[in-house]
Amino acid sequence: MPLPRILGLDPGLATIGYGCIQWDDSAELRMIDFGVIQTPAKTELGSRLEMIYCDLTTLIRQTQPTLISIEKLFFYKMGNTIQVAQARGVILLAITQAQVPIVEFSPPQVKQALTGYGRATKQDVQAAVQRELNLEKLPRPDDAADALALALAAGMQL
Amino acid sequence: MPLPRILGLDPGLATIGYGCIQWDDSAELRMIDFGVIQTPAKTELGSRLEMIYCDLTTLIRQTQPTLISIEKLFFYKMGNTIQVAQARGVILLAITQAQVPIVEFSPPQVKQALTGYGRATKQDVQAAVQRELNLEKLPRPDDAADALALALAAGMQL
Repeated sequence: MPLPRILGLDPGLATIGYGCIQWDDSAELRMIDFGVIQTPAKTELGSRLEMIYCDLTTLIRQTQPTLISIEKLFFYKMGNTIQVAQARGVILLAITQAQVPIVEFSPPQVKQALTGYGRATKQDVQAAVQRELNLEKLPRPDDAADALALALAAGMQL
Repeated sequence: MPLPRILGLDPGLATIGYGCIQWDDSAELRMIDFGVIQTPAKTELGSRLEMIYCDLTTLIRQTQPTLISIEKLFFYKMGNTIQVAQARGVILLAITQAQVPIVEFSPPQVKQALTGYGRATKQDVQAAVQRELNLEKLPRPDDAADALALALAAGMQL
């Protein structure tokens, strides 16, 4: 059986952060890849959703995760929530079609898992990501760092 | 050029209403088909989204619409809105992949178009649908009637 490989996803319409981690031979969590999928603001909504669907399907095929960790959706900004939820529906479809199991974490759950404190700052969480994965510098942009944090939260409970 | 054929869609996660209309030889709008796509409540969200995607893709292939009229998403019930938005994202993806143009109407716009009054009751709108399409009885369930109303609203502005 292959070692678990976890893909973290921070859903959005304009930017989807992703971060992939895996255990290495010495049972340490190691960063495999991170980055963002982006869609242009001035493009029609349906086309943006199709870009997300295609790019994410390709990403899953390339990274071959055994588990995907995705952020639970909260009402943080009213107008934004519908847009993010529409994108998240397409993301869940792509994951389901790829037949990869899903776990979901709320932002406080990720903070709790990485720092031991559910109301930690973004900086605290990013520092924990850097430390846990032995990264030379903080992963950028924030969406990719958030995705790595989601992957780590899932990895810590396996 | 073929006569316009309009597919109306009332988005949802548990129930998606659809209704298809077309002009006949005497320039009257005629009902082609109506009904609902349903997903079981106890099934995992990703699987429900995949059912919607597959069933809608099949429906578009079968009905061959030249235009799709879909309801704009409003915040009516907080918890429900995220679920509906996630389903709506998948619906927009399926439409985009089928390369059918989209128009969107809010509920008040549909009421205005069908009854001349933006705050008409559901019963008034359904009566207008029955009258405009010469139906022997009211289309059921409500989601299908709402979808026919969306199709008619689009038809009236062509």
